[in-house]
Amino acid sequence: MLKAGIVGGTGYTGAELIRLLSRHPLARAAAITSRSEAGTAVADLFPSLRGYTDLEFVTPDSGEMDGCDVVFFATPGGVAMEQARGYLERGARVIDLSADFRIRDRETWERWYGLTHASPDLLETAVYGLPEVGREAIRGAALVANPGCYPTAVQLGFLPLVEAAVVEGPLVADAKSGVSGAGRSAKIGFNLCEAGDSFKAYSASGHRHLPEIRQGLERARGGPVELTFVPHLLPMIRGIHATLYVRVPDRGVDVQELFDTRYAAEPFVDVMPPGQHPDTRSVRGANTCRISWHRPQDGDTVVVLAVEDNLVKGAAGQAVQNMNIMFGIDEIAGLDAPGMVP
Amino acid sequence: MLKAGIVGGTGYTGAELIRLLSRHPLARAAAITSRSEAGTAVADLFPSLRGYTDLEFVTPDSGEMDGCDVVFFATPGGVAMEQARGYLERGARVIDLSADFRIRDRETWERWYGLTHASPDLLETAVYGLPEVGREAIRGAALVANPGCYPTAVQLGFLPLVEAAVVEGPLVADAKSGVSGAGRSAKIGFNLCEAGDSFKAYSASGHRHLPEIRQGLERARGGPVELTFVPHLLPMIRGIHATLYVRVPDRGVDVQELFDTRYAAEPFVDVMPPGQHPDTRSVRGANTCRISWHRPQDGDTVVVLAVEDNLVKGAAGQAVQNMNIMFGIDEIAGLDAPGMVP
Amino acid sequence: MLKAGIVGGTGYTGAELIRLLSRHPLARAAAITSRSEAGTAVADLFPSLRGYTDLEFVTPDSGEMDGCDVVFFATPGGVAMEQARGYLERGARVIDLSADFRIRDRETWERWYGLTHASPDLLETAVYGLPEVGREAIRGAALVANPGCYPTAVQLGFLPLVEAAVVEGPLVADAKSGVSGAGRSAKIGFNLCEAGDSFKAYSASGHRHLPEIRQGLERARGGPVELTFVPHLLPMIRGIHATLYVRVPDRGVDVQELFDTRYAAEPFVDVMPPGQHPDTRSVRGANTCRISWHRPQDGDTVVVLAVEDNLVKGAAGQAVQNMNIMFGIDEIAGLDAPGMVP
Amino acid sequence: MLKAGIVGGTGYTGAELIRLLSRHPLARAAAITSRSEAGTAVADLFPSLRGYTDLEFVTPDSGEMDGCDVVFFATPGGVAMEQARGYLERGARVIDLSADFRIRDRETWERWYGLTHASPDLLETAVYGLPEVGREAIRGAALVANPGCYPTAVQLGFLPLVEAAVVEGPLVADAKSGVSGAGRSAKIGFNLCEAGDSFKAYSASGHRHLPEIRQGLERARGGPVELTFVPHLLPMIRGIHATLYVRVPDRGVDVQELFDTRYAAEPFVDVMPPGQHPDTRSVRGANTCRISWHRPQDGDTVVVLAVEDNLVKGAAGQAVQNMNIMFGIDEIAGLDAPGMVP
Repeated sequence: MLKAGIVGGTGYTGAELIRLLSRHPLARAAAITSRSEAGTAVADLFPSLRGYTDLEFVTPDSGEMDGCDVVFFATPGGVAMEQARGYLERGARVIDLSADFRIRDRETWERWYGLTHASPDLLETAVYGLPEVGREAIRGAALVANPGCYPTAVQLGFLPLVEAAVVEGPLVADAKSGVSGAGRSAKIGFNLCEAGDSFKAYSASGHRHLPEIRQGLERARGGPVELTFVPHLLPMIRGIHATLYVRVPDRGVDVQELFDTRYAAEPFVDVMPPGQHPDTRSVRGANTCRISWHRPQDGDTVVVLAVEDNLVKGAAGQAVQNMNIMFGIDEIAGLDAPGMVP
Repeated sequence: MLKAGIVGGTGYTGAELIRLLSRHPLARAAAITSRSEAGTAVADLFPSLRGYTDLEFVTPDSGEMDGCDVVFFATPGGVAMEQARGYLERGARVIDLSADFRIRDRETWERWYGLTHASPDLLETAVYGLPEVGREAIRGAALVANPGCYPTAVQLGFLPLVEAAVVEGPLVADAKSGVSGAGRSAKIGFNLCEAGDSFKAYSASGHRHLPEIRQGLERARGGPVELTFVPHLLPMIRGIHATLYVRVPDRGVDVQELFDTRYAAEPFVDVMPPGQHPDTRSVRGANTCRISWHRPQDGDTVVVLAVEDNLVKGAAGQAVQNMNIMFGIDEIAGLDAPGMVP
Repeated sequence: MLKAGIVGGTGYTGAELIRLLSRHPLARAAAITSRSEAGTAVADLFPSLRGYTDLEFVTPDSGEMDGCDVVFFATPGGVAMEQARGYLERGARVIDLSADFRIRDRETWERWYGLTHASPDLLETAVYGLPEVGREAIRGAALVANPGCYPTAVQLGFLPLVEAAVVEGPLVADAKSGVSGAGRSAKIGFNLCEAGDSFKAYSASGHRHLPEIRQGLERARGGPVELTFVPHLLPMIRGIHATLYVRVPDRGVDVQELFDTRYAAEPFVDVMPPGQHPDTRSVRGANTCRISWHRPQDGDTVVVLAVEDNLVKGAAGQAVQNMNIMFGIDEIAGLDAPGMVP
Repeated sequence: MLKAGIVGGTGYTGAELIRLLSRHPLARAAAITSRSEAGTAVADLFPSLRGYTDLEFVTPDSGEMDGCDVVFFATPGGVAMEQARGYLERGARVIDLSADFRIRDRETWERWYGLTHASPDLLETAVYGLPEVGREAIRGAALVANPGCYPTAVQLGFLPLVEAAVVEGPLVADAKSGVSGAGRSAKIGFNLCEAGDSFKAYSASGHRHLPEIRQGLERARGGPVELTFVPHLLPMIRGIHATLYVRVPDRGVDVQELFDTRYAAEPFVDVMPPGQHPDTRSVRGANTCRISWHRPQDGDTVVVLAVEDNLVKGAAGQAVQNMNIMFGIDEIAGLDAPGMVP
């Protein structure tokens, strides 16, 4: 039984890790840290977990994390880059759900995140944890940078077309996220009275997930990619929907075949038959990214629709998937639950 | 591996049965009937189940249901009372999620449901499937009447006090349900524009779950019970919250102790510490009924708060729990998942 | 044109006052204070008001409030009791939307609110601003205590029966409110991910609106009233629904007639025909309290259903109604808009 | 006082017309037809209108519509093209809220709507009722085709750039609508359990509003326009958000100035300062289209964000605006209410 530690377990990704690990046949949450909630039972903060965990939050230096085989960072930006080294040195493998190690280029990271990176050496060795593009590297990694929620859906939606080099011109990613993507946050803008029954774009001039997406697409293409990415806030809890616009002028391209082939062996990417419209609820609570595509009016533009649960395939579920890969466990262990509908 | 058949699988309880059975280690959905959707893949109607089931809907007479060990009726009222006998005669055990066999008194049933009962003999042998009050009878039953969603929460909330005979005077059950309690229904009143962002009572003058609740409470008390039951429609999908008002004039009664003791051995009833307020989301997708209580201003009135997921502990989950009991399987098999929060 | 000042205009009741006054034919918002937002344009904080107001938030001592005929306090508890006197002395009439002057008995107020009252003399002269019970007193009042949101709905629902002295035994008020009732607050519990798609009771052991409701009912009855009041949080923005349980054993009582007569002349109380279920959306944005009632199973218990918009009839609308009464304006001026459905 | 008749008043646009007309100082709803609800009081179907209208639904041939100065068609497709002529011949002016007269080219209309047009002569004389592009023509029109909800937001968002001829290449309109855009419909897909807490695209391969949008943009440009338009369904009631992607390679173009100038005199288009993100709730219930724009990473792509209430500026409000223009009334009469926030 793998012993998993969670650093910063009071947010939504932390709670989701505990929920997923509670069903995992080969791993268990062994310790959870929180400075602010140290001494509080996890199930007191999250009553849904009553009966499923006896853990209490502990301080990071309590010793409870010693002996963990894997440590998940479910922390705000800037924590993992300071603390990951310690766990690595004690022999644990680390999966960082924050953005600290996602951007390979240090200068780009520092510009977008407004910080000086504390561990540039780790930045170089960290492996980007999108299994669909780097499963082998993940298997051997000591430190995995778990992808962002938007970047997971947007990359999975674009990749078959970009890798096949059938794309021309700039890309547009119009993405929409449920409020949980902002974390467990007491900001007025996420109050139900503000975010409920309404819809808006945000960070349209530039969002931190843009360089992460571009990095992935440029790696796939082997060259520069022009991308416009506009995120929006949905009046709901979970779910990301990415609507992707890309020019594929060659009518000879069999788009369905490209997607089917690319993801044939992927346990967590579901390519629908042509003409479908995936809805976010179909993956609510599940580790699936579900994809469909259209070519409106048989024009040059192909529209790809990709949905995921931002807390699962977009965060904690993908982190468990990475853990499974890193430790040679069946990749779907603990993750084989369908979406909760309705 | 138990083979389970589902009659009428196109509604929410049918879909929820498939979802729960997909995770069950010792049972699997073997056949699902629907006259209107015969020939359609289940996963086409419920894309969330893509990859989790290969079943197609079949007609009831297709033969696919032969050999099922257990047959679930997830049908509208009036179907099970006609068709249950056939499955019973072929040796299957039957769990009816509709109301056809819930009321022991035939006259009462016929008055509230406006039908002539087609199988009064079965009505007499059917066992009411609330495990917390009749586990032994369920174990031996051929035909189990799975309780209604409201009756489950309301009875579990009242029972410790009624059984202990500490209650005086009339009872009030103010109950609230998410829209899925009305089934997968194309009625204008359940359109998001009508039921969303709004709240109202319905059937305040008399709801069919009233006689079912009263039957259970009168059995527990061994005498007549005066009950006012008012259901309300919540602008959300899943969840029932019952707020129960009951007079317990004797201040010497240790209410917490009554609840703790009554449910100490119950795997799916969670009694919270005093002074808590359970929220419906804490049991979203889980088979738990979570209960707390208050004695406001230290007065005569005790307020009990009970929550459940109407589709799980209030329907499909309880049906699986009953199946587990009937077949001697670990009672929590397939049901040991915490609520999905957020 | 009446000049209205608003103290503390950054919350929902403040914004609602501005919205309502923007349509008022005989009054206008002349100044709005906020220490934290001084210098900010009101329309920058509330873009919905772009084009409808040129006001900026000012500090209370800016002089902009001078010359206001009426001053609304839309402040947290404890502010009006300190500052109302100053405005009164300068000749303004004051309508306090907070709870500072709602409870006539100082000791009761101090016990429930945990403060020492700063202006006990004003507490004695303040008039409780529920027009349906004290229109004449409001007309002549210098200082009006605008009722709480729950107390408005609960009192209007109980009053015809309590005043007619047809009630026996204890009262139960099971009340449900949209999240805006908690104000414009950056607390985690009101985040859409916490309060959305869920339902729970809160303050079941005792809520501050209890003594206010009891005060009104005891005044109406001329004697003590035993009341259990349990508030709940609805996963929606606006709206209160009160479900009231009361024993009226005398079958000769014509309940409909009592309600019809009691509210025949009231412009903002709408008694529905028998057997209806008012929904909160029917009064969304309107100053109406809509009421219906049932006598389930023709028993002793009468169930009253009362809905209102907590920000309108439960706060800002009622405040404008009080202003209209105080200044001899047509009582419905600025308030004659139907609910926004859907 | 203008006498307005409404044909087909049982849907959301019909109800919204009644709501808006109830506040109109110079017009009133004089008659409302519905075959299915003839004899029902309007306020029984829409209790929010209790006290605001005494009208009953009547059959179209009841004579109640005689003498109406203006007739609104709030009917499904195909009705107005049959019945508009009759009202026109009796001297009424007609505003059709359906799509029957929106597409000038008959062949295009018949292809997208799958019907043979019953009144091609009227199609030629009908005036497209987008005041911001054709106010003068509307003034003199006998028959106005009220624009669709998506086309209003998308055209208003694109027009300043298209008219200024600063656009290159194809256009992308990623549009999202609340559920009320689908009308008052008892379809399972709009049940709260299906459309709530979820998000999806629909009609991505081709939606009927596409040719209407293209017609407007091509008229503005004076040439062909390549447009990809993908609508999505938001889990909320009212509101449309259009996110528009357009190439404006010339950095010398002052986009803000183009929008400010274009809409300076428009009472119902609100151009925000640069860098803002309008939210749909800011126009909830209001007749405003609120617009902002961004140029992400200072690239070639300009992103325009436009919001409206689909039932107001996207339907009934715009219809009243058109009525005001047609009859020489102050254009904002009955429409000068800010959005309802929260």
